[in-house]
Amino acid sequence: MNLDRLFDPRGIAVVGASTTPGKLGYEVMKNVAEYDAPAYPVNPSAEGEELFDETVLGSVSDVDGPLDLAMIAVPSPVVPSVLEECGEAGVGAAVIFAGGFAETDDEGEDQQAELVRIADEYDITILGPNTNGFFIPGKDLFGTFIAGIDPVEEDNVAVISQSGGVGHELSVLATNEGRGVSAMVGLGNRANLGFEETIAYFDEDPNTDAIVLYIEGVSDARGLLKACEAADTPIAAYKAGREDVGEFAESHTGALTGSYELYQGGFTQHGVVSVDSIMELFDVGAALADCPTPEGEKAAIVTAQAGPGIIIADRLKRIDGTLSELSQETQEDVAELLPGITFTENPVDTGRPSPEFGEIVEVVAHDDDVDVLIVFELHEIGLGYPIEEFRRILADVDVPVVFGTGGIDHIMEDDLQAVRDEGIPTYTTPERTADAACALVRRSRMANRGEDE
Amino acid sequence: MNLDRLFDPRGIAVVGASTTPGKLGYEVMKNVAEYDAPAYPVNPSAEGEELFDETVLGSVSDVDGPLDLAMIAVPSPVVPSVLEECGEAGVGAAVIFAGGFAETDDEGEDQQAELVRIADEYDITILGPNTNGFFIPGKDLFGTFIAGIDPVEEDNVAVISQSGGVGHELSVLATNEGRGVSAMVGLGNRANLGFEETIAYFDEDPNTDAIVLYIEGVSDARGLLKACEAADTPIAAYKAGREDVGEFAESHTGALTGSYELYQGGFTQHGVVSVDSIMELFDVGAALADCPTPEGEKAAIVTAQAGPGIIIADRLKRIDGTLSELSQETQEDVAELLPGITFTENPVDTGRPSPEFGEIVEVVAHDDDVDVLIVFELHEIGLGYPIEEFRRILADVDVPVVFGTGGIDHIMEDDLQAVRDEGIPTYTTPERTADAACALVRRSRMANRGEDE
Repeated sequence: MNLDRLFDPRGIAVVGASTTPGKLGYEVMKNVAEYDAPAYPVNPSAEGEELFDETVLGSVSDVDGPLDLAMIAVPSPVVPSVLEECGEAGVGAAVIFAGGFAETDDEGEDQQAELVRIADEYDITILGPNTNGFFIPGKDLFGTFIAGIDPVEEDNVAVISQSGGVGHELSVLATNEGRGVSAMVGLGNRANLGFEETIAYFDEDPNTDAIVLYIEGVSDARGLLKACEAADTPIAAYKAGREDVGEFAESHTGALTGSYELYQGGFTQHGVVSVDSIMELFDVGAALADCPTPEGEKAAIVTAQAGPGIIIADRLKRIDGTLSELSQETQEDVAELLPGITFTENPVDTGRPSPEFGEIVEVVAHDDDVDVLIVFELHEIGLGYPIEEFRRILADVDVPVVFGTGGIDHIMEDDLQAVRDEGIPTYTTPERTADAACALVRRSRMANRGEDE
Repeated sequence: MNLDRLFDPRGIAVVGASTTPGKLGYEVMKNVAEYDAPAYPVNPSAEGEELFDETVLGSVSDVDGPLDLAMIAVPSPVVPSVLEECGEAGVGAAVIFAGGFAETDDEGEDQQAELVRIADEYDITILGPNTNGFFIPGKDLFGTFIAGIDPVEEDNVAVISQSGGVGHELSVLATNEGRGVSAMVGLGNRANLGFEETIAYFDEDPNTDAIVLYIEGVSDARGLLKACEAADTPIAAYKAGREDVGEFAESHTGALTGSYELYQGGFTQHGVVSVDSIMELFDVGAALADCPTPEGEKAAIVTAQAGPGIIIADRLKRIDGTLSELSQETQEDVAELLPGITFTENPVDTGRPSPEFGEIVEVVAHDDDVDVLIVFELHEIGLGYPIEEFRRILADVDVPVVFGTGGIDHIMEDDLQAVRDEGIPTYTTPERTADAACALVRRSRMANRGEDE
């Protein structure tokens, strides 16, 4: 199994390419036409027609040139014969979109077993069936039927999702938050490509600094967890199905959801940060990708508004987090910078954004008792955020910094992007800010526990 | 106490108005200058200067015309004498921004008691001290020092927040989500205006369809809960401080956070939907404001992507929610509309957005076993959302509808606004969609339990 043939193909065939906009075979062709290796439309009933500057071929065997990947955009009954044809033509990877396999009934399971048999025979990696595909924005490679997905930009988190829909949702969320993904892979039914191989692949990817997983359930949970532990890249996971939604879940990607509690225990044991929503998966992924693992778990909060500071402190306490005890010197320096400051202990509360805010953040960042620095400041026009101070902090102190704020999107957008450009993850509510910081603390705990053993 | 003098003033004085941009007294004056009753800048040291087309007066007693409200933008030591002066001038309400009162120490408490004494003498309603103020976008009344807050639009949810910062955060969040607020009131230290009076006021407000509260802690929790129960308007509340963050919380608005568990029990008993984040407070407020209370608690899910459907079903189960049992007829109608549909039970899963999606939603909405309808569909370019069907459903069936989706913001924005324009609350992750629907179920439960008694 050579996953480069899937994720770095020298040529792509779209089998079932359609000239009708809206049809799956049209949208797939439209997407892969953006990629810089050749994309060949294949459809016997449209042979000779033009589609995105390519002539539609009658068969994959007509492709003249290297062909690694086939996007199979045909209905389920035809998939096995198409896959066989692809194997004959030397294809090494296939994305199978159609549903109607192991997620349906015994017959569907047999159909899927037949796909695996063919894949084994020809050494084909199958993504799917029953998936929306994958994309790697940094390569302009959108191997999916999702229309208009190319605004998703390149970034440093890889999304590996059992549900393509959830991976899609997380990717557009990332885009709306001014970030992106290094890759989105919708695993679907995992005929012969599952979490383990995909995690190992993106662990080696130089563009991926964190991996996030959406898991419905797998038969070999231990294998998945071991793959997570073997990875050097930090991993966060969202396990669906805390309650029993087994029957519907099985109808989805052919997987029982399994015991939620067992997964949670396994995550902690294998160094995976567990989360409980798509947004938290995005938020935690960004923090793990951008920030070093803190050495200890003592967090300092500097806030320009007390209410959000209370919320953040409360969330830290919920995970038994520890607030840094700021030194007398730090507190005096803070008080000198802002006479009459509301609260100089931790949280440090400046009461309102002010030009001194950044200096105060910098003073606190240098306190010896700080392992994680959480900064919260609602956006104020004309004041912006303390970029210079953030830059110096990241250069001088090896402490992860997470930043929370709030404001009208189009007004704060540029200022917020400037913070992200420094490599600091940003969040637009105090709870999201806190949960991201808590993820770093939890990862530090798991790492230190590992060292103790 | 006549709250119209605060929230519907015939004239406003800004005491401590400043001609220096960025200063609190400047930003307040800039904001209230937008209001359509007169706004008078007052500052003896700038007397005679021009500020936002008004001449700065030397004293509030110089104001010529009706004067209901004073925005007191002076440091704490001067506040009592200014308040007294305002009382002499016949002012009926005052917003006091300065901190340094009951939230600090015994001396501060005494200072605040002095304010209350003066307010009693002159019958002045005090908003604050230690607040960022309030705003009512529908009246262009921005009684706050927050710069650039006027993009917050009028909508149907009133925000009453013990922390002005949290109220600010929620209001900009609402704006970014294509909604707004009917009012934001930052209560601060609640010298003589608290939750009870403010809830009662906005309960009577014809522009307010739901009230959301952010509570750190009050000495008379029973009074607050009774005010909630007495209101006809649905109420959601976010109580901070599940863990012990007492000392810092006290330093904020002079209130201990009190027992989190007691509040939770009280909320349930008094019909208040409790939430656990600012975003959930916004989300639930929108659902309570836009949707009727469902008659029962059976929910149907129609989804175009299975993964989000699983997440939503799981969240419903967590609150012991019940999935509707769709009739044989409904399931047959659905299967007829979309042959080969993935799952016709509940969740109904169409596998992918399609032109038939809206018709399927409509069929399910008419099933007798449905009390709440949850629709989830990732955005697809060119397909949009089923507006016509939504319109007919709302006209024909008395069932609340919540809608969830995902997509690139600028691409789906217009389509999503069209859904909101029908009066359907919209959410951009499955978890937010589910939590909003769960809030409706929980409210229905509380209402039905009340009827049983």
